[in-house]
Amino acid sequence: MAEEKLPTRAQDFSEWYNQLVLKAQLADYAPVRGCMIVRPYGWALWENIQQALDRRFKATGHQNVAFPLLIPRSFIDKEKHHVEGFSPELAVVTVGGGEELAEPLVIRPTSETIIGHMWSKWIQSYRDLPVLMNQWNSVVRWELRTKLFLRTLEFYWQEGHTAHATREEAEAETLQMLDIYADFAVNDAAIPVIPGRKSEAEKFAGAHTTYAIEAMMGDGKALQAGTSHFLGQNFAEAFEVKYLDQNGQLQHCWTTSWGLSTRMIGAIIMVHGDDQGLVLPLDAARKLRAEIVKAGIRVTLDEREGQSPGWKFNDWEMRGVPLRVELGPKDVAKQAAVLARRDRPGREGKISAPLADLPATIERLLAEIQQALHDKALAFRKANTHDADTYGDLKKAVESGFAYSRWCGSVGCEAKIKEETRATMRCIPLEQEGGSGNCVYCGQPATARAIFARAY
Amino acid sequence: MAEEKLPTRAQDFSEWYNQLVLKAQLADYAPVRGCMIVRPYGWALWENIQQALDRRFKATGHQNVAFPLLIPRSFIDKEKHHVEGFSPELAVVTVGGGEELAEPLVIRPTSETIIGHMWSKWIQSYRDLPVLMNQWNSVVRWELRTKLFLRTLEFYWQEGHTAHATREEAEAETLQMLDIYADFAVNDAAIPVIPGRKSEAEKFAGAHTTYAIEAMMGDGKALQAGTSHFLGQNFAEAFEVKYLDQNGQLQHCWTTSWGLSTRMIGAIIMVHGDDQGLVLPLDAARKLRAEIVKAGIRVTLDEREGQSPGWKFNDWEMRGVPLRVELGPKDVAKQAAVLARRDRPGREGKISAPLADLPATIERLLAEIQQALHDKALAFRKANTHDADTYGDLKKAVESGFAYSRWCGSVGCEAKIKEETRATMRCIPLEQEGGSGNCVYCGQPATARAIFARAY
Repeated sequence: MAEEKLPTRAQDFSEWYNQLVLKAQLADYAPVRGCMIVRPYGWALWENIQQALDRRFKATGHQNVAFPLLIPRSFIDKEKHHVEGFSPELAVVTVGGGEELAEPLVIRPTSETIIGHMWSKWIQSYRDLPVLMNQWNSVVRWELRTKLFLRTLEFYWQEGHTAHATREEAEAETLQMLDIYADFAVNDAAIPVIPGRKSEAEKFAGAHTTYAIEAMMGDGKALQAGTSHFLGQNFAEAFEVKYLDQNGQLQHCWTTSWGLSTRMIGAIIMVHGDDQGLVLPLDAARKLRAEIVKAGIRVTLDEREGQSPGWKFNDWEMRGVPLRVELGPKDVAKQAAVLARRDRPGREGKISAPLADLPATIERLLAEIQQALHDKALAFRKANTHDADTYGDLKKAVESGFAYSRWCGSVGCEAKIKEETRATMRCIPLEQEGGSGNCVYCGQPATARAIFARAY
Repeated sequence: MAEEKLPTRAQDFSEWYNQLVLKAQLADYAPVRGCMIVRPYGWALWENIQQALDRRFKATGHQNVAFPLLIPRSFIDKEKHHVEGFSPELAVVTVGGGEELAEPLVIRPTSETIIGHMWSKWIQSYRDLPVLMNQWNSVVRWELRTKLFLRTLEFYWQEGHTAHATREEAEAETLQMLDIYADFAVNDAAIPVIPGRKSEAEKFAGAHTTYAIEAMMGDGKALQAGTSHFLGQNFAEAFEVKYLDQNGQLQHCWTTSWGLSTRMIGAIIMVHGDDQGLVLPLDAARKLRAEIVKAGIRVTLDEREGQSPGWKFNDWEMRGVPLRVELGPKDVAKQAAVLARRDRPGREGKISAPLADLPATIERLLAEIQQALHDKALAFRKANTHDADTYGDLKKAVESGFAYSRWCGSVGCEAKIKEETRATMRCIPLEQEGGSGNCVYCGQPATARAIFARAY
């Protein structure tokens, strides 16, 4: 398997990605167009992501629940933007138990509608608020162009849904969850991200405001890695989610929703991977480190017969294992082992360490690798992000990375830029440098600086 | 909420169950007929069950995966018994992305078919075996009569799937997983179970042999709480799952599948619950015990205003909390607290303990409660299980519990008993007492003793 060489990233980034996902046995194509099978190695990554996020959700008071897969078709129609956004993407069940259904059901594309419906029954009084829920499940959206992990008909994610008494509380929740996603991306996935607000054109169908974390992939393209929506009272009005306030007045709730999906696995591959294969960040390895301290070193011993050490080294490199311990007869004689860092292939990443110091050396190296992965990805993003003051600069910048440009705030300029350059506005970063200037497209005074890029 | 009294179990067991599930906020009815919403308290129980089982699955070498929700309709037709069993229960997607689909897709009712299809690609050689997989997901079966947790259109479960080189290995795997289910039921859920083999009439559609753990509910009815199937080569032949053996011969694999679902939550409610509400077994509490040792006692402090202590006591009893700590001014003066055991409502279950000894006392009581729950359920099952040597005895026994009767092995006698008594053969227990006798129905020499009962 490892014998067939991957194309290099420079040759064909897209094909490098597709082949790597298959060869490392992270996922495979399903018999249904656009669906995927997540194989054990890929699912173990997702379980790590789940644990890292679920811990953060529970620490901030959220409880897990399970709403059903099947939603009456009529629910989707109740929020006017929602129906526009999701209608073209629905999978519709028309037959159940051998009979034509009186009302067709859709497989959830997301669960705001059915949750709104149930909240209208459960929420009566301000004492019932806030409601802080999350669920881990899969959803189905009938996508035409698909790519393993990045865009599939069915994908795995978590969807958080909260209801609040006040606008301020709901807005604070929206930003809190954005922060949690950013913290996870940077500290667990070693992926630097830009937290920002989406334009009206790019926001979630039914949201008042959508926030997202945007990351740069290894080919300079952008990927939205997690989103948090302030839904205002849109869904509360559509589904009559109301509560009696402390003065006995009936009020609509303010709601939020937020999600992060298996496309994060795609991001990890495309940000950290190299021509040899995967390079994995170290949430998993950090757990290993805790075990080293507790129970000595836990290793995967590669005892496969009929394969040379070189073949085995290539195979483990392809699979992204952060640190490889090589122990030959000469090493044993010296009471030392060679440690090979995945993030620095070749001689440069090889270190000889006395066996007696191995646990401490491994612990130190794993921390160094995690930091190095993040720093490398950040340096790459910086090198490929350009302050583009003219439209010419913007067009050039988005050929290979992000353009950071001033914008007047008009939907028209955003649409023209997209049409002419295939770059979308990824986000208006929450952190703005201040200063003033003119829109990169129309030359009118700008209201903010935004990130433009071609995106997955 | 707790003010409206539950019906007693003696008055109406079925209604007691339905109302308790709703009042304790474990689950609610969804807008789609036969579907349910699992609410936070119910989902927390499922997460405990998931952890307890997943730990056991991983310790026996199984890896988690995710196969897609949507299966081509034609896959179901490939195994002849499978299609007979599942065709009437399918939910069918005929429209996707606004277009009629060329081939209809079904929402998985179980995943043997799509897994068989992928195994035929992944498995080549004896070196690829065994394949040991599990997935946590939901499946849809178009059931007509539904009941929260026990039988719903969509339900949550795990489905394990394994492929082996030999029949012996696959049979050993099937029984190993049955053992794991029994161990979990007894030690974590405190539910005594009878591991046994299903009759031909009751086995899984497509299995060679189905094994199950059967439990007695509080009304004497049976509930199948987990199943493990030896599939022989049926699915391997239907999907051409073959491997090259060590002699270079192409062979079909031997496969198994096994599942346990959210109906286990229904079993916990119906086995341990009483007229005051839920009584929860102590997997969760055992974790709490570990924390007591580590970090002092962790309590949920009921600070709700405007409610009397009596109301609060009833509410927590309804919710099944195993041990309640009551601490009033008089108790503080005495430097003692009153501990109230949920499994023994009333005075008998109240113990005064010095505050200084509280952690040790709580730890001891929690262990006692767990054991007491199991022993009580076992005593109930024994009291309601009757050796029925005559057909008259069988008919009487299944009015209120299990009949343990000899059977000749014929499908005809089994069918007649079902038709005339509404009792099905629950299982042929793996443990057989030996001895000989005649079939309870036809009087011909018996081949085994079996459990007959009315069932959920």
